[in-house]
Amino acid sequence: MEKDIKRDIYDSLSPADYRYWDADVAAYLSENAYTKYKLAVELALVKALAKHKICSPSIVKEVARACAQITTAEVYEEEGRIKHDIRALVNCIRRKVSDKAKPYVHMTATSQDIIDTANAARFRDVTQKVLIPSLVELEKTLVKIAMSEAETVQVGRTHGQHAVPVTFGFTVSSYVSRLGQSILALHDLSEGLRGKFAGAVGAYNASSLFFSDPEGFETDVLSEVGLKASEQSSQVTPNEPMVRLLAEISIACGIMANLADDMRHLQRTELAEIGEEFEAAQVGSSTMPQKRNPINFENAKSLWKTIAPRITVAFMDQISEHQRDLTNSASSRTYGETVLYAVSIAKRLSRTMSKIKVDKKSVGANLSRNLGLIAAEPLYIMLAALGHPDAHEKVRELTLSAQRTNTPLEAVALSDKELEPYIKKMSAEQKKVLAKPSRYTGVAAKKASNVARRWKKKLSL
Amino acid sequence: MEKDIKRDIYDSLSPADYRYWDADVAAYLSENAYTKYKLAVELALVKALAKHKICSPSIVKEVARACAQITTAEVYEEEGRIKHDIRALVNCIRRKVSDKAKPYVHMTATSQDIIDTANAARFRDVTQKVLIPSLVELEKTLVKIAMSEAETVQVGRTHGQHAVPVTFGFTVSSYVSRLGQSILALHDLSEGLRGKFAGAVGAYNASSLFFSDPEGFETDVLSEVGLKASEQSSQVTPNEPMVRLLAEISIACGIMANLADDMRHLQRTELAEIGEEFEAAQVGSSTMPQKRNPINFENAKSLWKTIAPRITVAFMDQISEHQRDLTNSASSRTYGETVLYAVSIAKRLSRTMSKIKVDKKSVGANLSRNLGLIAAEPLYIMLAALGHPDAHEKVRELTLSAQRTNTPLEAVALSDKELEPYIKKMSAEQKKVLAKPSRYTGVAAKKASNVARRWKKKLSL
Amino acid sequence: MEKDIKRDIYDSLSPADYRYWDADVAAYLSENAYTKYKLAVELALVKALAKHKICSPSIVKEVARACAQITTAEVYEEEGRIKHDIRALVNCIRRKVSDKAKPYVHMTATSQDIIDTANAARFRDVTQKVLIPSLVELEKTLVKIAMSEAETVQVGRTHGQHAVPVTFGFTVSSYVSRLGQSILALHDLSEGLRGKFAGAVGAYNASSLFFSDPEGFETDVLSEVGLKASEQSSQVTPNEPMVRLLAEISIACGIMANLADDMRHLQRTELAEIGEEFEAAQVGSSTMPQKRNPINFENAKSLWKTIAPRITVAFMDQISEHQRDLTNSASSRTYGETVLYAVSIAKRLSRTMSKIKVDKKSVGANLSRNLGLIAAEPLYIMLAALGHPDAHEKVRELTLSAQRTNTPLEAVALSDKELEPYIKKMSAEQKKVLAKPSRYTGVAAKKASNVARRWKKKLSL
Amino acid sequence: MEKDIKRDIYDSLSPADYRYWDADVAAYLSENAYTKYKLAVELALVKALAKHKICSPSIVKEVARACAQITTAEVYEEEGRIKHDIRALVNCIRRKVSDKAKPYVHMTATSQDIIDTANAARFRDVTQKVLIPSLVELEKTLVKIAMSEAETVQVGRTHGQHAVPVTFGFTVSSYVSRLGQSILALHDLSEGLRGKFAGAVGAYNASSLFFSDPEGFETDVLSEVGLKASEQSSQVTPNEPMVRLLAEISIACGIMANLADDMRHLQRTELAEIGEEFEAAQVGSSTMPQKRNPINFENAKSLWKTIAPRITVAFMDQISEHQRDLTNSASSRTYGETVLYAVSIAKRLSRTMSKIKVDKKSVGANLSRNLGLIAAEPLYIMLAALGHPDAHEKVRELTLSAQRTNTPLEAVALSDKELEPYIKKMSAEQKKVLAKPSRYTGVAAKKASNVARRWKKKLSL
Repeated sequence: MEKDIKRDIYDSLSPADYRYWDADVAAYLSENAYTKYKLAVELALVKALAKHKICSPSIVKEVARACAQITTAEVYEEEGRIKHDIRALVNCIRRKVSDKAKPYVHMTATSQDIIDTANAARFRDVTQKVLIPSLVELEKTLVKIAMSEAETVQVGRTHGQHAVPVTFGFTVSSYVSRLGQSILALHDLSEGLRGKFAGAVGAYNASSLFFSDPEGFETDVLSEVGLKASEQSSQVTPNEPMVRLLAEISIACGIMANLADDMRHLQRTELAEIGEEFEAAQVGSSTMPQKRNPINFENAKSLWKTIAPRITVAFMDQISEHQRDLTNSASSRTYGETVLYAVSIAKRLSRTMSKIKVDKKSVGANLSRNLGLIAAEPLYIMLAALGHPDAHEKVRELTLSAQRTNTPLEAVALSDKELEPYIKKMSAEQKKVLAKPSRYTGVAAKKASNVARRWKKKLSL
Repeated sequence: MEKDIKRDIYDSLSPADYRYWDADVAAYLSENAYTKYKLAVELALVKALAKHKICSPSIVKEVARACAQITTAEVYEEEGRIKHDIRALVNCIRRKVSDKAKPYVHMTATSQDIIDTANAARFRDVTQKVLIPSLVELEKTLVKIAMSEAETVQVGRTHGQHAVPVTFGFTVSSYVSRLGQSILALHDLSEGLRGKFAGAVGAYNASSLFFSDPEGFETDVLSEVGLKASEQSSQVTPNEPMVRLLAEISIACGIMANLADDMRHLQRTELAEIGEEFEAAQVGSSTMPQKRNPINFENAKSLWKTIAPRITVAFMDQISEHQRDLTNSASSRTYGETVLYAVSIAKRLSRTMSKIKVDKKSVGANLSRNLGLIAAEPLYIMLAALGHPDAHEKVRELTLSAQRTNTPLEAVALSDKELEPYIKKMSAEQKKVLAKPSRYTGVAAKKASNVARRWKKKLSL
Repeated sequence: MEKDIKRDIYDSLSPADYRYWDADVAAYLSENAYTKYKLAVELALVKALAKHKICSPSIVKEVARACAQITTAEVYEEEGRIKHDIRALVNCIRRKVSDKAKPYVHMTATSQDIIDTANAARFRDVTQKVLIPSLVELEKTLVKIAMSEAETVQVGRTHGQHAVPVTFGFTVSSYVSRLGQSILALHDLSEGLRGKFAGAVGAYNASSLFFSDPEGFETDVLSEVGLKASEQSSQVTPNEPMVRLLAEISIACGIMANLADDMRHLQRTELAEIGEEFEAAQVGSSTMPQKRNPINFENAKSLWKTIAPRITVAFMDQISEHQRDLTNSASSRTYGETVLYAVSIAKRLSRTMSKIKVDKKSVGANLSRNLGLIAAEPLYIMLAALGHPDAHEKVRELTLSAQRTNTPLEAVALSDKELEPYIKKMSAEQKKVLAKPSRYTGVAAKKASNVARRWKKKLSL
Repeated sequence: MEKDIKRDIYDSLSPADYRYWDADVAAYLSENAYTKYKLAVELALVKALAKHKICSPSIVKEVARACAQITTAEVYEEEGRIKHDIRALVNCIRRKVSDKAKPYVHMTATSQDIIDTANAARFRDVTQKVLIPSLVELEKTLVKIAMSEAETVQVGRTHGQHAVPVTFGFTVSSYVSRLGQSILALHDLSEGLRGKFAGAVGAYNASSLFFSDPEGFETDVLSEVGLKASEQSSQVTPNEPMVRLLAEISIACGIMANLADDMRHLQRTELAEIGEEFEAAQVGSSTMPQKRNPINFENAKSLWKTIAPRITVAFMDQISEHQRDLTNSASSRTYGETVLYAVSIAKRLSRTMSKIKVDKKSVGANLSRNLGLIAAEPLYIMLAALGHPDAHEKVRELTLSAQRTNTPLEAVALSDKELEPYIKKMSAEQKKVLAKPSRYTGVAAKKASNVARRWKKKLSL
C-alpha cells in the first residue's frame, strides 16, 4: 500500500505540486489534511450525540481512536470500490469500531454536512494561520521601508511620465495602507465561513427524527470545530461566504501584483532606482552573463494572473440546481490553489522586499532630469493664486518653450516678461519650489510615517 | 448642437442602451449623470475654499451658477479640441465665470480628484437608491412566497434526483436568506467607497502650498458630497473598495441566477410545479403556438453570464504603474453596465416571481412518484438507530429490489424477514414516515417562516 | 536524494495531482517529461552543430549520453544554487561531458530557445497522442449511439418545454458533428505550434557570429524535434499559437459539458429517459440509499467550469514587455492542467456514454404527455399553407383551449367550426401528423445516420 | 413615434454608445442593422419559396416592399404587446402584405432560423468589411515603420533590463508578423460562420412537410444571404464558430495591447525613445501643464482589458439544454461590443502609430549606457567557441567587476590576464563587437525588411 501512494514530485502535473508546494499550506489544504478535517467533523458529530445522551462517552473514545488511524489512501481505496467519497470514509470508520458503535457513525448526517463543514474549518484555519501571517510579514517589511525611506525624495510618475515629487517611503506606504485593509477584510471573511448539519436537503429531515431542536443540535456539532451554522442550507451551505473570501484573496494578490509591477519597473536599466541584492552565485540569464533580472517581482505578477480569472469559477459554483447538483465538486477542489499562490506571492515578496536597496544616486539623478519641468504644476498654481487669469495655458506654453530651447523651466519663467509682476509677488518659499522642485513633495514624508505607524499599531507588528 | 447629440436608440451598439436601458440607473450612471457628479465635486471644492476664506462666498455662487448650465455635449466639444476630459470641464466652467473667479476653479485639484470622487459618490448613490431597493423589492416578494407556501410539501431534489421532501416555502426562503445577506453586504460596501482630494500624486503637493493641514481640507471638500477620504491615494484612490462592491454585485446576481435556474427547471413540462402567468396576447414561439417559455428566468441567467467574468476587468484595474497609469480609464467606464444588468435582473425577477403560480397538483404528483423511495433515508436512519449494524447497505439493497419488482419501498421493507425485529420496535410515528414519506419534511415549514420573518424585520419590508 | 523527491500523493495541493492525475498526460506534461523535452532540444542543437561541422559527431554522442542521465531533481538542486532554471540544466549537462564538449552545450542558445521549443513539442505531442485520441474514443461511442438510436423518437425540448419530436440518435449526432469539428481544429492548431532558435532577443545575434544563414540553422535545430520556426520571435515565440490551441481545448470541453448537461437532465427522476448502469456495490448517497446520481456527467460539467475562465490567463500572457518580460512564466505552467482536465472529461464521458441505457418506455411516455400539443406547430403550418390568414394566432388559442379543457389538441382542432374547411383539405398524411405527432420528426433519423456515418469515415473510427 | 426613439447620446449607459460608438460598426451591429439583417433573411426565405414554386414571384416583391418599410421601433412596439421578438417582426411584415402573401411569411421557419442566420451574416460582414480593414490599415502603418526603421539600432530589453541590440524596425516587424497572422485567421473564421434553416429543433420537421429535400431548401435560403448551413443544428446553430471568431478577435486585441504597452514604455521620461506628436492645443494634465501622456496607447490597453475576460461568456453560451434554452440570448447581444472595441483599438493605434517620432538621439544614448555590458553575451560566446571551458561564469564575474569599478566591459576584458590567449585568437570582426556592441544586431535589419515585405505582399498593402 504505502509504496503505491508515493510519487516522484516531478511526476506532478500542477506547478502547485512540483514547484510552488508549501508545507504550511499543505497542513490545511492537502488531500491528507482534508481527510483529517472530515474525520474531525465525523468525530464532532459523535461528541454531540454523546452530549445529548444518544450514545455513551465510550463510543466517542472508540470513534476518536478509529479516526486517528485512518489514512487517505485507505479511504480512496474504498471509494474505488463503492464510488462515493464520504460513504467510503464512513465505511473506514465503521470497520474500526464495534458493532455497538457503528450506528452512531455519521448518524443523521448527509455527506455534505461533513464536506462543507470541513471546508469551512480548513479554509478559515489556513487563512488565519498561514495566509494572513504571510501577508502580515510582508506588511511588516513594507512598514519598515515606509519609515526608513519616508524622506527619500523620488519623482512621482503618472502615465510613465515625470509628474511631481513624492518620497520612496510614501510610495511604499500606499501599499501598507491597501494591504492592511485587505488583511482586516480577510480576517472578517474567514470568520464568516459557515458549517452545516442540516441533512440531505437542509431541512433537518433526519435529525428531526431524534431531536426536538435539530438546529440546536447542529450548533452543538459545529461548535466542536469552532464554527457557526449557515442561516439556511440546502444540501449545501450557500457558497457566498467562500466566494467572498476568494474574491478578497484575489484582491490582496492584486495589491501585491501592483507592488511587484512598481518595483520591477523601478529596476529598469534606465531607472535603476532600486536593486535586489543578488546572491554571489546567482545567474541572471543562460546567455547574457550581465543580467540581474527582477524575477521575483515577475513571478508575483505571473501568479496573480493565474489567480485573477479564477473567481469566475466560484461565481459559477454559486448556482446549484434545486437542493443541489454536484457540478461544484471538482471545481471547488481548485480553490486551495488560489490560497497557495497567494501565500507564495506573499512569502516571496516579503523576502524580496526585505533585500531591496534604494540607489539614492539614481533616484536623485532621475529627479533632476527634465529641465525642472516637474515645477510646472506649482508654478501654474502659484500664478493662478496670484491672479493670473489663464495660468495653466501660460505654463503649458512655457514648458513647450523650455523643451524647444533646452532651457530649465525656472529660467524660462524668470525671463518671461508677462510673468514679471507675478514672480515679484512670490514669497521666498514659493520661489524656492521653482528653483528646487524636489522640495515640492507636499506631505509625502509625514504621510508615509503616519500610515506606517498606524498599521504597525493596528496589526501589532 | 442639440440635433447632433440625439440619436435613434436602435442605432445603439450596446444592449445596455437599446434594450436594457433603465431611467433609474441612468439618473446616476449615464454620461450626463457623470457630468453632474463631476460638477458637484468642482463646486464642493470652491465651497471648501470659501469655508477656508480663500475665496469669497460670492465666488461660490458664481461657480454654482456656471455648473448648473453646463451640458455634457459642451464638455465633449471642448475635449475634442484639447484632448483632455477634465481640463475640458474646467474650461467650460471658467468660461462662465468672471476673471476674478477663474483662479478658484479646480484650484490645487488634479483631474483624478474630481473623477474618483464623482465615481465614489455616484456608485454609492446608485447602489443605495436603485440597486438595493430593487433587490429589497425582490426580497419582499420572496418573503411573501416563503410564508404563503411554507407548508406546501415538495420533493427535494439533489443531482436532479428525488431526495427527501422539503416545502416550496422552504426552497424559496433559502434565497431570502442568501439575498438578504448580500443586500446588507452591498450597503456596507457602498459606504466603503472613498473619495480623494490629494492632488497629482496623492501627496497633497499643490494643496500644501495653501493649507497647513491639507488632509483636513480634503475632508472638507469631500464632506460636501458626503464622502470620506481614502486613507492614502496615489493619483488615484485605491481601486479595492470598488472591486469589492462589484464583486458583491456579481454575488447577488449569482444568487438570483440560482433562483432563476431553480424556477425555470420547476417549469419543465415534466415537472410543471410552477407556472408563470402569461398575458392574454403573449406568444411563446414564432412557430410553436403552444409554448409557454420561462423567458424571464432565462433572461436572468443570461444577464448573469454577462456579468460573471467581468470582475476580472476590475481585478486588472487594481494594477496601476507607479503613481498611476491610465489603463483603467476605458475599462472602468464599463462598471456601470454591471450595475444596470443587476438592477435589470432584480426588477425582472421581482415582477416574474410575483406572478408565479404553484401547481399543487403537479407538486403532489411528483412527490408521490417513485415507489416511496424517498423514504429510504428515514428507513436507513431508523434501522441504524434501532441497532441494525449495516442499515445503509441493507436499505440500498431494498431500493434496488423495489425498483426491480416495481413495488413500493414500504411494502418491500415490511415483507423483509431480516427487518422484522426492527420494524416491530418502530414507533407509530416512525412507521407513518415510511407509509407517507411526504411527512418527512423535518423543520422545513418552520424554518421557511422563521427565515422569512427574520428578514422581513431586518430589512423592514 | 531519491527519498527527498518522493511524496505521498495525498499531500498534493492540486486535484490535478491527487485526484485527476493521468499517466498518459504525465508522459508529456509532468515536470519530468518537461525536463526530457528540454534535454531533447539541447541535444538537437548539438546535432545541428555537428551537421554544420562546428563540432564532431563524437560530441553528439557524449552529449546524448549525458542528457540520458539527467534527472529533474538534479536540475532543481542546481537551480536552488544559481536561481536560473535553464542555466542549471546546462550546468548539469556540462558536468557530465568532457572539457572539449563543454563549449558546444547550449552554444548560441538563449534559455527561451530551449523552453519555447520544448513546450511547442510537448503540447503538440500531448494533443496528438493523448487528447485527440481520447476525444476520438468519445466520438466513436457517440457515433455508435447516433446510429443505433437513430430511429428512437424522443420529444425535442426547448426552454425545458416540449417542442416537437426528434430522435435520440439525432440528439446525439449533433454532438458528433460539433466534437468532430473541434477534433479537426485541434489537430490543425497543434500543428501550428512553433519553436525558435533565434537567441536572446530574436535577432539571431549570437548565431550570426557563426552562421551566415542563422535562420537556416534554426530550421535545422528545430527539424530535429519535428517543429517549424516561428516567423519572427523576440526572446519568446509569440504566444498566439498556444492561445489558439488552449481556446480550442476550452471549446471542445464546452461541447462535452453541453453533452453532459443534456444527459444529466435526461436522467432527472421525472424524465428518466436514460440511465447509467451502476456497479453492483456503487453508493449514490451517504444517507439516501436509493440515489443513482449522474455524478460522471456532473463531474464533466464541473471540470469544464474549472477550465472556462482560464483562457484569460493565456490572453494576459500574450503581453510581454519589449523583447520579453518573465510574467508569463509561472502562469504558463498551469496550461498543462487544462489539457489534463480535458482528457479527464473525455475519458470519463467515453466510459459513461458507453454504458448508458435508453429507457424507451420513459421516452415514449414523455412523448405522449401533454395532450398532443407538440402537434401545434405542424397544425399551424398546414393551416397557413392551406391559406388560413392567421394560423399561428388561431392555433395559439386552440392550445389554450386544449389546456383549459384538458382535451387533446387534435380533438379541439377537429371540432373547431372555423377550421373545418381547412381540415377537409388536409391530406391523409397531414392528418396523421395531427393524430400521431410522434411521426413529426422531419429528417431526424436520416440526419442522425448521415452525420454519424460521415464522421466515422472522416476520423476513420 | 419618431420622438420617442431619439435619446441624448449622453444619456447612454454604455461607453460603447456615448464614447466609442462607431458608425462603420453600427452599420452592421446596431439594433437597426440587426433588424435589417433579420428582414433580409425573412425575404431570402420567400425568395427560396418562389424558386421552389411554392409561391409566385409577385409575393416576393410584396414581401420585399414590406421589409423595406419596417422600422425597429415598430417591431419593438409589437414585441411589447406579444413578448416575442421574431413573431413581432413577422407580424409587422404580415400587416404590410396582402392576405394572399401572409402564409408565406416566415413559412416553416422558427425564430432561431432567422436570428442565427442574421447573426452569422452580420458578424461575417462586420469582420470582413470593418474589423479586418481597420487591422489592415494598422498593419500597413507598421509595415512602413518596420521598413523605414529597419536599420535604427535600439537596445533590446528583457525583464526591463538591457539585453543585446535589435533595431526599432525589427521590434515593429514582430507585430507585423503577429497581426498579419491574426488577420488571416480572422478572415478564415468569419467564413466559418454558419446559418440554419432547420426549424424548431433542427430536424427540418416543418420544412419536411413541404420539401422532399429540406436540407437542399435550407441551402437555397442561406445562399440568398451568402451563407452555408451548419452541418447540424438543434434549434440553434452550434455556437462554436462564433466562439472561435470572438477568441481570435481577443487574440488580435492582445497583440495590439502588447504593441501599445511596448510603445508607452518607450515613451517613459527616462527612455524617451519615441514620442507622439501632440496637437498644438492638446493638454496632458489638468494640473501639470508639462505632461505629454501616452493616452492613446493607454486607451488601447484599457479596452483590451474590457475584452479579454468576455470570451468566457461565449464559452458559457456553448451550453444550451437539450434542443436549446434561451440563456444565451441577452449575453450574446454583448458580442458586438467586442467587435466595436477591437475596431476602436485598431483605428486608434493606426492613427497614433502613423504619428510617432523615433528620437534617435535618445535611442542612441540608451544604447550606449551601461558600460558596454550588452557585449557580455558575444564575449561569452566567442570565448566558449575559442575553447574557454567556463566562459559564462568567467564573463559573469567580469560584468560584476565592471560594475564594481565603473569600467567598460571591454576594458575589463582586455586587461584580464586569463583571457589574454583567447583575445589574441579573436578576429578583427569579433573584437569590433566588443568595442562597439551596437554592431551586435544579428540579422535584425534584414529580418525587419523581409517580414515587412512579405506581409505587404500577402495582404496586398
